[in-house]
Amino acid sequence: MRGKVAVIGAGKIRFGELFEMSLGDMVEQAYLNCLNSVDKGIAPKEIKAAWFGHWSGGFIGQGAMCGASLASFIGNLEIPVTRVENGCPTGGDAFRHACLGVASGVYDVALALGAEKMRDKPAAESLGAAGGGGGSEMGLHPSWMLGMGGPGIQALHATRQMHELGYTMENFARVAVKNHHNGTLCPYAHYQFEVTIERVLGSYIVCWPLHLLDCCPQTDGAAALIVCRADLAKKYTDKPVYVLGSNIGIDHKNLWDRNSFVEQLSTVRAARGAYEMAGIKPSDVDFAELHDCFTNTELMNIEDVGFARKGEAAGMLMNGEFDIDGRLPINPSGGLKAHGHPIGATGVGQLCELFWQLREEADKRQVKLKNGIGTQHNVGGDAFGVSAYNILSRSI
Amino acid sequence: MRGKVAVIGAGKIRFGELFEMSLGDMVEQAYLNCLNSVDKGIAPKEIKAAWFGHWSGGFIGQGAMCGASLASFIGNLEIPVTRVENGCPTGGDAFRHACLGVASGVYDVALALGAEKMRDKPAAESLGAAGGGGGSEMGLHPSWMLGMGGPGIQALHATRQMHELGYTMENFARVAVKNHHNGTLCPYAHYQFEVTIERVLGSYIVCWPLHLLDCCPQTDGAAALIVCRADLAKKYTDKPVYVLGSNIGIDHKNLWDRNSFVEQLSTVRAARGAYEMAGIKPSDVDFAELHDCFTNTELMNIEDVGFARKGEAAGMLMNGEFDIDGRLPINPSGGLKAHGHPIGATGVGQLCELFWQLREEADKRQVKLKNGIGTQHNVGGDAFGVSAYNILSRSI
Repeated sequence: MRGKVAVIGAGKIRFGELFEMSLGDMVEQAYLNCLNSVDKGIAPKEIKAAWFGHWSGGFIGQGAMCGASLASFIGNLEIPVTRVENGCPTGGDAFRHACLGVASGVYDVALALGAEKMRDKPAAESLGAAGGGGGSEMGLHPSWMLGMGGPGIQALHATRQMHELGYTMENFARVAVKNHHNGTLCPYAHYQFEVTIERVLGSYIVCWPLHLLDCCPQTDGAAALIVCRADLAKKYTDKPVYVLGSNIGIDHKNLWDRNSFVEQLSTVRAARGAYEMAGIKPSDVDFAELHDCFTNTELMNIEDVGFARKGEAAGMLMNGEFDIDGRLPINPSGGLKAHGHPIGATGVGQLCELFWQLREEADKRQVKLKNGIGTQHNVGGDAFGVSAYNILSRSI
Repeated sequence: MRGKVAVIGAGKIRFGELFEMSLGDMVEQAYLNCLNSVDKGIAPKEIKAAWFGHWSGGFIGQGAMCGASLASFIGNLEIPVTRVENGCPTGGDAFRHACLGVASGVYDVALALGAEKMRDKPAAESLGAAGGGGGSEMGLHPSWMLGMGGPGIQALHATRQMHELGYTMENFARVAVKNHHNGTLCPYAHYQFEVTIERVLGSYIVCWPLHLLDCCPQTDGAAALIVCRADLAKKYTDKPVYVLGSNIGIDHKNLWDRNSFVEQLSTVRAARGAYEMAGIKPSDVDFAELHDCFTNTELMNIEDVGFARKGEAAGMLMNGEFDIDGRLPINPSGGLKAHGHPIGATGVGQLCELFWQLREEADKRQVKLKNGIGTQHNVGGDAFGVSAYNILSRSI
């Protein structure tokens, strides 16, 4: 796909506890922000297909929310619209599909929009059942029912990182310090406050060794991107951003089949395939938005996408290498830690940050660009068995 | 997309009440049947991406069932796998995505697999909530809660067909007679018995004017297709089938926004776009598998995809034009009426039938081919606001 597809617009709403907004309200605002971001303007009817990244449609009280929902929200019934769902990488995968649609030659311009209500879900048990954690293949006894939701699974990883790699709770807390600081510089972040290592370690334990401030918050949000054929991009903007690679990686859906708890093979596979598609190495990347649903997860991700050898991320973190003014800024937006994780919106929102950073429009949180390449990552789904990895560049 | 993508394999299991099989069991058998159907053989590792058509993942007790589930079931963790969900057209849309993936040039060979357990869902109310019918955009008060599930919505269409078009319950029943007859010729159909107009009209009313035998059954099932770059197809089979057009059409997600109850604009739009992509007219089509979730729906579909003018389908039906030996056979497989409707599997299974018919491998239910073109259709999703339409041909 390298260089065939360009991003020409990006729009997001401020993530948060948006009880006053419906899913449709959030979608409309993100969509309008995205349309308005296209420098030379774009008419809605120029968009020829859309993908809706949305995780919880079908859960109790969430309604169906398939393609017709997005089409109705944005008032465009004349184009094909599909909902894709791939766990926490739903947003990153919706973007990949818009890119595949354009690369296929069938659609010149396509929309990827992700949105999720996480705060006013009426039935907690339906969320648990849906996660399906390390459950049986029928999902009738999902491990979520045994307390094995996101924090429980990541706590298993964290304890193995401590045991095998020597990582500490202070290391994990340092991720929170970094990302919350970056979040104070980002107007779209849900949480905009600083934390200290002491404050993280003083917050209550959610699932040992993870404290409340090691976990991303539950948040509502929406984000949107417009992509087009690279050769048409200059019609819409003088500063297009190009898609070099886009991939999904998979691991066993059940925890008991995994070989390691200090790496996630889904991420390793997603990154490897995307780098190959892009023709670049990890060392070519200037900055990244990596899926920090939990602080320990960011350290695992940094290693799994190839920015550090296994066991070395924590030391580099403590040296400040991943700070916003460090050698390789990780989560300059503040990440999930500060934004929250409205599942379908998360990956799309991270890609908005890549778009702004690569165009040098990220204001106080602008990172230094060298090669002009940034990457975006999600991990989640069945017991964290799915990852998305997208590589964007300011030049082809 | 015309002519860029070929279908080289198709596999299905017999649909039915498969309490003894898990979702994974069904997936594996459909997948193996599909692999084995490739004439010159294919190694699993030649498949470079997959799409999982699955509707109810995330519902209570269903587990997550996103990409990692399909990957684990088929034992291939090395490729990207995405779940697509688009209501009842989920299967037809999964196929479209495999085609877009191949057309993009990123994947030479791709799998589209659809599967659904419909009989042992543990929580009926989660199905109701999920449907979302004509509900509010938040889905908090879906019309399913008011009894407006599939039968209720289609009964509204049926009464308008009777009022505006002069259609009768005998007309609707004649669809059941035709499709159940065809089902007796198909080894994959759930129901393999004949019905008469009297028997249909003597079955109890589900939602007036629809009788039990006007409705498709609740059924478990799985089906799979392998597609590849058209220029590689002869490596796998001497009888590839080509994809001429593939499209999704959309209508308002809420019933109260619709202009008509005797046509579904989602189907009109899906078909129009697919014909345009294929460069053919409705009159070029030899036979079709159209979404007969209810008998009245088939008549509406016949008109909406352009095989009859509005109000003329019933007369043509009564004349036998849509019979398996008629001018334009509709649902030679027996359709949803005889197969049931395991949502993610339905569209993929219909496309299997197209593959077999176009290769003249449909045994006792083989239709006569003239142009060698068949079409497949689904309608459903938010209050029947989404349609899929795929056009296959035995020649480019």
